[in-house]
Amino acid sequence: MAITSERWIDPGRLQAQIDDLAEFGARGETGVARLVYAPEWVAAQNQIAAWMTEAGLRVERDTVGNVWGYLDGRQSGEPLVVSGSHIDSQNPGGRFDGALGVLAAINALAALRERHGQPERTLAALSLVEEEASRFSTANFWGSRAIIGRIGAEEPKRLRGYDGVTMAEAMRDAGLDPNRIPEAKRDDIGVFIELHIEQGPYLEQADLPVGIVERVTGYRQYLVTLEGEANHAGTTPMDLRRDPMAGAAEIISGVVNTAHRMGRPAVTTIGRIHAQPNERAVIPRQVSFTVDARSPLPGQRERLLARHEALIREVADRRDLTLSLRVDSDRRPVLADPVLVEIIAEAASEAGVPAMRMTSGAVHDSMQLAEIARMAMIFVRSRGGISHSPEEFTSTEDAADGTEVLARALYRLGYA
Amino acid sequence: MAITSERWIDPGRLQAQIDDLAEFGARGETGVARLVYAPEWVAAQNQIAAWMTEAGLRVERDTVGNVWGYLDGRQSGEPLVVSGSHIDSQNPGGRFDGALGVLAAINALAALRERHGQPERTLAALSLVEEEASRFSTANFWGSRAIIGRIGAEEPKRLRGYDGVTMAEAMRDAGLDPNRIPEAKRDDIGVFIELHIEQGPYLEQADLPVGIVERVTGYRQYLVTLEGEANHAGTTPMDLRRDPMAGAAEIISGVVNTAHRMGRPAVTTIGRIHAQPNERAVIPRQVSFTVDARSPLPGQRERLLARHEALIREVADRRDLTLSLRVDSDRRPVLADPVLVEIIAEAASEAGVPAMRMTSGAVHDSMQLAEIARMAMIFVRSRGGISHSPEEFTSTEDAADGTEVLARALYRLGYA
Repeated sequence: MAITSERWIDPGRLQAQIDDLAEFGARGETGVARLVYAPEWVAAQNQIAAWMTEAGLRVERDTVGNVWGYLDGRQSGEPLVVSGSHIDSQNPGGRFDGALGVLAAINALAALRERHGQPERTLAALSLVEEEASRFSTANFWGSRAIIGRIGAEEPKRLRGYDGVTMAEAMRDAGLDPNRIPEAKRDDIGVFIELHIEQGPYLEQADLPVGIVERVTGYRQYLVTLEGEANHAGTTPMDLRRDPMAGAAEIISGVVNTAHRMGRPAVTTIGRIHAQPNERAVIPRQVSFTVDARSPLPGQRERLLARHEALIREVADRRDLTLSLRVDSDRRPVLADPVLVEIIAEAASEAGVPAMRMTSGAVHDSMQLAEIARMAMIFVRSRGGISHSPEEFTSTEDAADGTEVLARALYRLGYA
Repeated sequence: MAITSERWIDPGRLQAQIDDLAEFGARGETGVARLVYAPEWVAAQNQIAAWMTEAGLRVERDTVGNVWGYLDGRQSGEPLVVSGSHIDSQNPGGRFDGALGVLAAINALAALRERHGQPERTLAALSLVEEEASRFSTANFWGSRAIIGRIGAEEPKRLRGYDGVTMAEAMRDAGLDPNRIPEAKRDDIGVFIELHIEQGPYLEQADLPVGIVERVTGYRQYLVTLEGEANHAGTTPMDLRRDPMAGAAEIISGVVNTAHRMGRPAVTTIGRIHAQPNERAVIPRQVSFTVDARSPLPGQRERLLARHEALIREVADRRDLTLSLRVDSDRRPVLADPVLVEIIAEAASEAGVPAMRMTSGAVHDSMQLAEIARMAMIFVRSRGGISHSPEEFTSTEDAADGTEVLARALYRLGYA
């Protein structure tokens, strides 16, 4: 609900590009399946490059396929001010996750150029190749990892997609040379601002179009394996069982309750579970499940993890189950740059876009780029908090509000 | 621990046959993988027929491959007194489950013939073809179901084994004509006594070699499916989730605790569980799991089931999850014939074999044959209560004790 006399962003042009881009890999009415390096992805990335050129930006492609659109500044040699996101999607996902951030950056730079001409510092719109891991299960952040130099030398040959094709083959199919990945690494980025749909319900609940991300969640992901004794379901008395399913149920209930009682923004999820032998009439020998625990507040995250680990060990011990507790990934919360957060807040205020400061429970390319640049994020309201689904929806007005804030923040960074 | 001056059963001959039979389909040191109608099964059933002949029994094979060894009585036309079990195994299983009951019957009849000559009523040893469902997932009780006329006309063509072969093809491979299955049906069986390893720890705990089964457990098997809302594991606050995994964990803990508190012999097992989409960072949309609840006491079984169903409905309702509660199988407890139980108890007493009356938590061929005959079972102690495993072990002494009791019970039924 913007209250300003004059807007820099044209909502119609932005919405038309959202709709046009959704044609590449369209699935059904509103779905998109645009997997990295697939033909529809190549066509979409070409369309992005064309829109950048149309916006008066100087287009470059790097060696992994990221597309950069520069609005060159008067001062050369200054660190770049970059905004963007990714154009690949879940399989299928929706029209907004990733794509909106790329189009917002292009539309913001187009508006700045039209309205204010050449900036002092070089601004860039960035269309990253891959974030979703929807074709290669462990490829995620392929584009941003290439930029920060975090792609392993063996990954192109080792990663194999759900379609059986290796990453190296997929890159060659898209006209790229996997041996040249290291050339995509950069050290000239000063600022990275990512606009993204929220992927959660907080903005909708607050009835606000825009959020300013102050911190991105930290998490730890465990694989818990409990081993007991397989036995006949009919003949083994309850008091003599070492039943890992009963132990798993107690742990799952416990960790979910712990996170719930700790209160927002702590969350804990059990997404995967497997029993062995997984037979109806056999007490399982082994049950394994994942625990994904997150909080953007460093102290809360540590408390949450400590309580989870204590509970898991206590239950396994009391039930005489053999425990394997494996940490599969662990990431501390990442803070957005406080100066950037203030600049974005001032930009929102100037644009008359009501916004709140918030935390991100999801992980984004910006967390990778935070390793080499000052980082911030702008969230845009997403209906029902739904993402990774054809049901994703963000209104034209909200998308334009977010882009307006982005444009005015980039103005402060590039023209002042 | 038998305390009697004179035993009818030769433990050495019984043990030698146990060892010899275990060679058919041997896996490793003590394992057996003898799947119905496979070549090693055919060879084993031929060996059984040879031992029956050696014991002086008149051998017949029926149209599904059950082998019958008759010790004909003076009075023709009287209902048969039959004892036996099955010779197929789990894949792999051990040397005793099923096999011991067949060999006990042959050795008992051999001892009766040698010691007492022709009986008044015809006695028979029976080697059933199939009980384990280890080759065809829903074939179980193939031999006993044929005898009571409960094999569906479409089953031979419909049932397909884990090896891809249909039941009809498997029967033809073993020289049998699936069209002649109905001819295996009988109505001349008066008594069926099955000797079987316990498959549970009660006898070992009581330090007794033999149990007399008074009743066989009743059970109900459910498939519980809970549907909630899939969502992002990082961005969806705990208080807004409709998480079927949390509901499943609460139900699993609850039903296990209910059975435990109700006390022996009630048991409840969750053996299978599946989550969808089963992704680490996604709150599941759906979790389904089996509930297998048993009690041999009719009143306890009804109470157990009522409490389980109330809990399942309450949790689903309170957590706003969509519930599907499917009953996959349901069987009331089966009582052994009380007169037969007394006869077996007297036989044990006479043989000096300490025995206790007990219930069976597992399901056996005898439950099928109970539909057409008076039924009883003799259990023999099994080390650790282990079955369906190469680890199965019953001592020579315990096997001979059980067979001694069987022989003396059959004497009372056939010669009195």
